Amino acid sequence: MSSTSHSQRSSPELIFETLNAYQRTAALKAAIELDIFTAIGEGASTVAEIARRSRASGRGIRALCDYLVVLGFLTKQIAGQEPGQGIPQGTAPGQSYALTADSSKFLDRRSPFRIASTIGFLALPTMTDAFKNFADVVRSGQPHVAGGAGTTGPEDPIWIDFAIAMAPMQAPLAEFIAKIESAGGRQKWKVLDIAAGHGAFGIAIATHNPNAEIFALDWPQVLKVARDNANSAGIGNRFHELPGSAFDIELGTDYDVILLTNFLQLFDPPAIERLMRKVHAALKPNGRAVTLGFIPNEDRVTPPNAAAFAIIMLGTTAGGDAYSFSEYVAMFRLAGFTSNEFVPLPAGPQSVIVSRK
Amino acid sequence: MSSTSHSQRSSPELIFETLNAYQRTAALKAAIELDIFTAIGEGASTVAEIARRSRASGRGIRALCDYLVVLGFLTKQIAGQEPGQGIPQGTAPGQSYALTADSSKFLDRRSPFRIASTIGFLALPTMTDAFKNFADVVRSGQPHVAGGAGTTGPEDPIWIDFAIAMAPMQAPLAEFIAKIESAGGRQKWKVLDIAAGHGAFGIAIATHNPNAEIFALDWPQVLKVARDNANSAGIGNRFHELPGSAFDIELGTDYDVILLTNFLQLFDPPAIERLMRKVHAALKPNGRAVTLGFIPNEDRVTPPNAAAFAIIMLGTTAGGDAYSFSEYVAMFRLAGFTSNEFVPLPAGPQSVIVSRK
Repeated sequence: MSSTSHSQRSSPELIFETLNAYQRTAALKAAIELDIFTAIGEGASTVAEIARRSRASGRGIRALCDYLVVLGFLTKQIAGQEPGQGIPQGTAPGQSYALTADSSKFLDRRSPFRIASTIGFLALPTMTDAFKNFADVVRSGQPHVAGGAGTTGPEDPIWIDFAIAMAPMQAPLAEFIAKIESAGGRQKWKVLDIAAGHGAFGIAIATHNPNAEIFALDWPQVLKVARDNANSAGIGNRFHELPGSAFDIELGTDYDVILLTNFLQLFDPPAIERLMRKVHAALKPNGRAVTLGFIPNEDRVTPPNAAAFAIIMLGTTAGGDAYSFSEYVAMFRLAGFTSNEFVPLPAGPQSVIVSRK
Repeated sequence: MSSTSHSQRSSPELIFETLNAYQRTAALKAAIELDIFTAIGEGASTVAEIARRSRASGRGIRALCDYLVVLGFLTKQIAGQEPGQGIPQGTAPGQSYALTADSSKFLDRRSPFRIASTIGFLALPTMTDAFKNFADVVRSGQPHVAGGAGTTGPEDPIWIDFAIAMAPMQAPLAEFIAKIESAGGRQKWKVLDIAAGHGAFGIAIATHNPNAEIFALDWPQVLKVARDNANSAGIGNRFHELPGSAFDIELGTDYDVILLTNFLQLFDPPAIERLMRKVHAALKPNGRAVTLGFIPNEDRVTPPNAAAFAIIMLGTTAGGDAYSFSEYVAMFRLAGFTSNEFVPLPAGPQSVIVSRK
């Protein structure tokens, strides 16, 4: 609804559409659950055809598909309509829907880049409940989910869901990060993947570099997901498990690379500094810490999706934030990293910082 | 977040931001409840000042205000920041927030145009629950709230909330509609206001025309709200009550104008045609029916907020829709109205159809 969002004319529309914005989430989730994007990708284009394939009502599909056009997930073609004649309800002859390029790539079940599984994490009650009575969260500055601990308590099961649901969305990032350092070429690399989750980041490096050994650190139940993925990728023999919290266990030594993906942002600056001292000590001379996260510009309000991540950290963690590059640099310097390089990623709201020992 | 919404580059961002869009609703609702817009309007501009006025945490206000900038409700100024230095968490010296023109007009408690009360209707559980398990609604084509009846069952109490909460948002529309026909000048006008709600539409006509008599039709508990508003406006002696359902009770005869505001869209075409026959019979020769609603273009996907209303009708009514002008015209012709004129309103997503007997 970008055409009206920032209209120069005085209008209550932005307020109206924001108070109804939760309906966007509900509609996209429903469309994924009904597998509408696959139905359209496979050739269903009219309300009747899409309804038949997704075993849904014509009334429901008509309203949902029109709304998905409004939101930018579908396009709509209208043919043969006579002016002033009206369109019989529910049937909409001559109106047909098609996928956008991104919906085809990211939401059609047949696409290798499908990320529809992200609803298995982003739509979890733990996430959505965090925004109920949100004024209370702003008042206290603390999450009310998981008894106030948010999602960073010991062995919070949400990270199993994260590992399963978010892997497809992270896969291209893992490829990109593996290429930042050419995955070490064929050097004997020792890689620590902190909060490994699905394990995709370490696995991508091991796939590119046949001499890389991966040490994956996460809660034991999460490591089972990463282990399965490592075995499927054929690098299981170079995949080692470090169960526990990065704050508590021995990390080991002499790592060439330590990965910190979607992790530091969950904590407050003293905790980040403390962990990064430990990371610094665990690296080889000239070793690198690679931080992936939502890193907005210094104004903390652009780009929009990186900046918006701060509100998720407020709602679900006791001390996390969408830190800017300079905020990270300040923490990393205190931990001993004097060289820190910002690396934007080609697509999506996340970025990388490469810090050299 | 319009800058990224329809990016040409392949990106999962639209999916990510849509699955998180419910957070926009939560944040704006929290900001209204914490009265942040009034605090900023009254001069609080830093995180610390806004937090103090709204009795909230610095961490919460910082994240919330940044997010409100991302969404377009606030602007942010940054002064005196030294590159690479970082900004101490929670304090944000040199960062200040200001209201946009629309936030000042529509959300600051001191503005006569404030519409923040709309959360008293738009954020009601009856509305938001309608979008839970929304795939089920699309499957059945029927709402699951209020036992499947949606909001159009007899004396549904949600219309009391509507009458109270939505009056400020409707007031400018009522002024505009009163002027369409100059409220009849000083002619002895007999006006029927069907589903009067807050009564604003009839009251605006009565205020402009000292010889207009208003007959307000709605559920008895809703009419109490309208009656209070009529008395406050000083037109109580020309305000008459018709308690009940427009589909069931005698409407009376010889009306100059019959108002149908935010009403027809709640029903299916056969019900609308049936009611409009009754309306046609109740009008004087040359009398006019005035329909206000969300009326998208014939493509049913533009303008965005008018089109998006269809999904609310799917979620909350058994047969309602965001009908296009040609769809209304087809129904109105069957009911006897051969002259139907489309009148766009100056601001907001709603439009008017004036139908002549």
